Amino acid sequence: MKRVKLVVAYDGTNYCGWQVQPNAVTVEGVLNKTLRELLKEDITVIGASRTDSGVHAMGNVAVFDTESRMPAEKISYALNQRLPEDIRIQNSEEVEVDFHPRYQECRKTYRYRVVASEFPNPIKRLYAHFVYRTLDLEKIKEAASYLVGTHDFKSFCSANTQVKETVRTIYDIQVKQIDDEIIFEVNGNGFLYNMVRIIAGTLLQVGMGAIDPKEIPAILEALDRTKAGPTAPAKGLMLVEIKYLGSKKF
Amino acid sequence: MKRVKLVVAYDGTNYCGWQVQPNAVTVEGVLNKTLRELLKEDITVIGASRTDSGVHAMGNVAVFDTESRMPAEKISYALNQRLPEDIRIQNSEEVEVDFHPRYQECRKTYRYRVVASEFPNPIKRLYAHFVYRTLDLEKIKEAASYLVGTHDFKSFCSANTQVKETVRTIYDIQVKQIDDEIIFEVNGNGFLYNMVRIIAGTLLQVGMGAIDPKEIPAILEALDRTKAGPTAPAKGLMLVEIKYLGSKKF
Repeated sequence: MKRVKLVVAYDGTNYCGWQVQPNAVTVEGVLNKTLRELLKEDITVIGASRTDSGVHAMGNVAVFDTESRMPAEKISYALNQRLPEDIRIQNSEEVEVDFHPRYQECRKTYRYRVVASEFPNPIKRLYAHFVYRTLDLEKIKEAASYLVGTHDFKSFCSANTQVKETVRTIYDIQVKQIDDEIIFEVNGNGFLYNMVRIIAGTLLQVGMGAIDPKEIPAILEALDRTKAGPTAPAKGLMLVEIKYLGSKKF
Repeated sequence: MKRVKLVVAYDGTNYCGWQVQPNAVTVEGVLNKTLRELLKEDITVIGASRTDSGVHAMGNVAVFDTESRMPAEKISYALNQRLPEDIRIQNSEEVEVDFHPRYQECRKTYRYRVVASEFPNPIKRLYAHFVYRTLDLEKIKEAASYLVGTHDFKSFCSANTQVKETVRTIYDIQVKQIDDEIIFEVNGNGFLYNMVRIIAGTLLQVGMGAIDPKEIPAILEALDRTKAGPTAPAKGLMLVEIKYLGSKKF
């Protein structure tokens, strides 16, 4: 038996998110089905990040165990032959059998894309959130700087979640403008439910002048979801990369 | 009566190109229908560039004549309320009544996007052509330099066209790499049928080593479509901008 790690990229537009659900097409469901057909085993993947409906990924991670003699590195190619065009395995490799994609220490990078212009851009409509308003980038950068560090992010966590421990560390938030796009890139050791989308929604409110950057520390301290901005739409979010730490081959 | 000029952006994925055809959904057809509903007149637009099925645009141009008293600048907003999400008017303004988007002297910019990597990128699959091979950018730049200038581009024109005059001027070809993408940006005073896609297909052959950059002048001189590379897929192509020249308000 060996454990195989997959790096999975997908266009989330046509999926009801990552996690298997009855009567819905999900990325995890399609992966399980395709692996079962390919390897003729009853395979169930374990995913690193259960992305929501409409969220995209370049680097989600999944593992599964197999008795197959197919070399782990070849599985990506064989899977890509069978997967729909909107899911593509970027890498497959053997990992230690005790590697777990959710419990292993890691650094995750998410990107949130916003098109800020007078008219929507039809080419980007499925991959970026559109706002009519011009955004004040300097204010957004200032607001973002207060979020970097180890904080209790309860104000930035969707209210309908059971998670108890809401302290997380954000190492970096990059805010950049490229043509008509404003991009937020957030790197941290883990994220609460909807956390990046609530951060994006809050930074957008700051950029539009509805929230002063100096209010961010008080919003954090309030530990109250209603104090932060709205949850920005799913389609603007992409899971870019998950980097696992540790000396073993993870 | 006034003539109104529209700058039209669209995701070409779900359209059988620009030009009206029976039993097919086209961008021009949708524009005509939407304008007729909005202005209650029998409007037929004249387009600048009849882009092929699957080709995208940020800046195609169309004009129409109307008796409407709606200010020309407001028509973009009213149209965007009624158009499908994958077509968006970027600008509307009144122009001289003798302005014709195809006969007026202009500069057109097209962009061709290629993802060159080990695995396809599902997020870009509808907007870029994918190649497994790494591409030699220096060779591509050298090849592109031979195409800049005024030439007879008959070798770079689809064989099934009736156009007689095949001399065109290319002012500039930019070749750049951004992350996993190679972008060709071509600026010229007009383009033959499939010309940018054949240039892209030829530059890709150069980048893969199948054509030597030094062969480009002989390919031009041959005036023979079979000497150039293949026509690259439609989905990688975008009409970026059309700039009209002249002192009148065009």
